[in-house]
Amino acid sequence: MTDDERAIRALVEAWMACSKAGDLSALLDLMTDDVIFLTPGGKPFGKEAFAAATKNKKNVAIEGRSEVQELCIFGDWAYLRNYIDMTATPLDGGAPLHRTGYALSILRKEADGRWRLARDANLLAAEKS
Amino acid sequence: MTDDERAIRALVEAWMACSKAGDLSALLDLMTDDVIFLTPGGKPFGKEAFAAATKNKKNVAIEGRSEVQELCIFGDWAYLRNYIDMTATPLDGGAPLHRTGYALSILRKEADGRWRLARDANLLAAEKS
Repeated sequence: MTDDERAIRALVEAWMACSKAGDLSALLDLMTDDVIFLTPGGKPFGKEAFAAATKNKKNVAIEGRSEVQELCIFGDWAYLRNYIDMTATPLDGGAPLHRTGYALSILRKEADGRWRLARDANLLAAEKS
Repeated sequence: MTDDERAIRALVEAWMACSKAGDLSALLDLMTDDVIFLTPGGKPFGKEAFAAATKNKKNVAIEGRSEVQELCIFGDWAYLRNYIDMTATPLDGGAPLHRTGYALSILRKEADGRWRLARDANLLAAEKS
């Protein structure tokens, strides 16, 4: 495994860990400033909207796992296909939301030598848990 | 505009034209043999499943337009973000299905010098038309 591959896999793990810990500032540091998120049926959104949406989900416990299905690196760019299984449980006792599915992401190695998420197409669909 | 960018934009146009014309073999030649399609809530599928699904849609007229929102090329790889607006109209007189949304695609320049679709995350959602 190359250093770049190891760094990208660590990024995927860190993403899940920061989501679980609700550590928004660490999460924001895992994405480029010009990141674009694509979701089914929605408009593309960036870092600021991601931050706002995450703040709104403060009372939700997120538990998930991510399985790298493909990782291709070419220089300072890479793409990644992931299978994701995650559950968001409201802390007020509401019903947990279980979502599974795939994501296709573009990653960029920035000037500081760190890989970050640059584009993300999230195809997860909600399931009854 | 570079030759590669021109070639990729031509591929996007050709995809729409072949879909409209129902020219499956031309469409299959626009994708790599190992292409993977991702759709919301579905399992990833490849060229064979794409062909089978397209054959099943024989009695549907497809009309669409694709707007390139971002195209980044690095060597023999590229990624593309598209806004797509398409309508599938059953030829038997059924109600047309209108779908709009975004796609994130990975393209590869193959040994024959032609760019082809390699990975495609299609986030289009159905709308009432």
